[in-house]
Amino acid sequence: MTTVEIPNPTKRRFVQLIQLLDNWSEQKITSSDISEITGWSTSLIRHDFWLIGFSKGVSNGYFVSELSEAIKLALGIETSESHYIEKGNVADENRFSDSNDSRSFFKNICIAGLGRLGSALLDESFFENSNFKIKAGFDSNVNRVEILRSTFPLYPANEMQFIIKQQKIEYAILTVQDKDAQNMTDRLIKTGIKGIINMTNVILKVPDNIKVENLSIINALNLVI
Amino acid sequence: MTTVEIPNPTKRRFVQLIQLLDNWSEQKITSSDISEITGWSTSLIRHDFWLIGFSKGVSNGYFVSELSEAIKLALGIETSESHYIEKGNVADENRFSDSNDSRSFFKNICIAGLGRLGSALLDESFFENSNFKIKAGFDSNVNRVEILRSTFPLYPANEMQFIIKQQKIEYAILTVQDKDAQNMTDRLIKTGIKGIINMTNVILKVPDNIKVENLSIINALNLVI
Repeated sequence: MTTVEIPNPTKRRFVQLIQLLDNWSEQKITSSDISEITGWSTSLIRHDFWLIGFSKGVSNGYFVSELSEAIKLALGIETSESHYIEKGNVADENRFSDSNDSRSFFKNICIAGLGRLGSALLDESFFENSNFKIKAGFDSNVNRVEILRSTFPLYPANEMQFIIKQQKIEYAILTVQDKDAQNMTDRLIKTGIKGIINMTNVILKVPDNIKVENLSIINALNLVI
Repeated sequence: MTTVEIPNPTKRRFVQLIQLLDNWSEQKITSSDISEITGWSTSLIRHDFWLIGFSKGVSNGYFVSELSEAIKLALGIETSESHYIEKGNVADENRFSDSNDSRSFFKNICIAGLGRLGSALLDESFFENSNFKIKAGFDSNVNRVEILRSTFPLYPANEMQFIIKQQKIEYAILTVQDKDAQNMTDRLIKTGIKGIINMTNVILKVPDNIKVENLSIINALNLVI
């Protein structure tokens, strides 16, 4: 599937919009509904839809399912629907079964750093209803790895290289302490990871082909004051 | 103190830059150093500095402490230095003591929702070296409030109105479940809170005067794929 080139601000709005649409109880939604909740102007909303070639229904609203599907396709987020169409395999009834870990419907992720914040994420239910599946947790502290309970396996950080390749893990959530952030990032990059959700307060130095989203709580607080 | 009006993209870069400067081991930093780590162009970096009227030293770098101070002042983040100058009170030796809760150096925050993620934040050390101080945690589940251990007090959500006013809490970190996000937000707004760090996956509907920063991990993952 080719992904349309979408400007970053639009992409950010779309990612939020998906959550809104997924929780919308009615069959249709208008740009005014969206504007009222998000604060984005209706013209901006319509412009975003135009960018991805979505112009169905305007007078009395968009069909939520169609709109959601169009946005997910444009962002490259596979849906059960798109997966089904793309594979074109009617007989593929196991596509949602847990037994087939290599299926493309889910993107595999890992948690790097199992301190307070990282271990709070050791719960698959946190990612349910999403396209992401946690496959592993890593920490340099072997004791921590042995003591913590989790529904998926935890490993010492020195097994990272092997496990990330073996489990086809593509993205990491970085929850180490600030002082270890860059070092752990360098190690993750060596494993061939594609993107990092950076929950530390550190600006990570990464090559151009690695995507980073910064979710530092302290930085966010500094933005709301 | 009056805060300069800074465009949002610049503000976001500044908030990240503060972390970089705070961890910079040398006395000086050049725009090339900053560019190499952040990926921002040197002209963009210089333009940001120009916006806040900071143009000291260019040939062989900026003094890190001066630059950091200038950025924090522009963002309205009080530093020990600026607090000292602003108050102009040499005798105010108690300004960093924990006994004086109403001092303006710290912004008081609370955690709303003490599930896995929220309770991972029940640790003052998470916010050390920042301008933020956790004063309370809230949860609708009274059992949870009683069982969890914390270095600051936890309260049932129905005491929120009183405690937030009494403790002069200005900002909340929202860590409830998605289904409770808007309801808890409405209650927080009624208490007079100024800003919310939204860790849920929901788009929050808030009045214009309430600032929200969205830190949804799933949304961030959708942005790096």
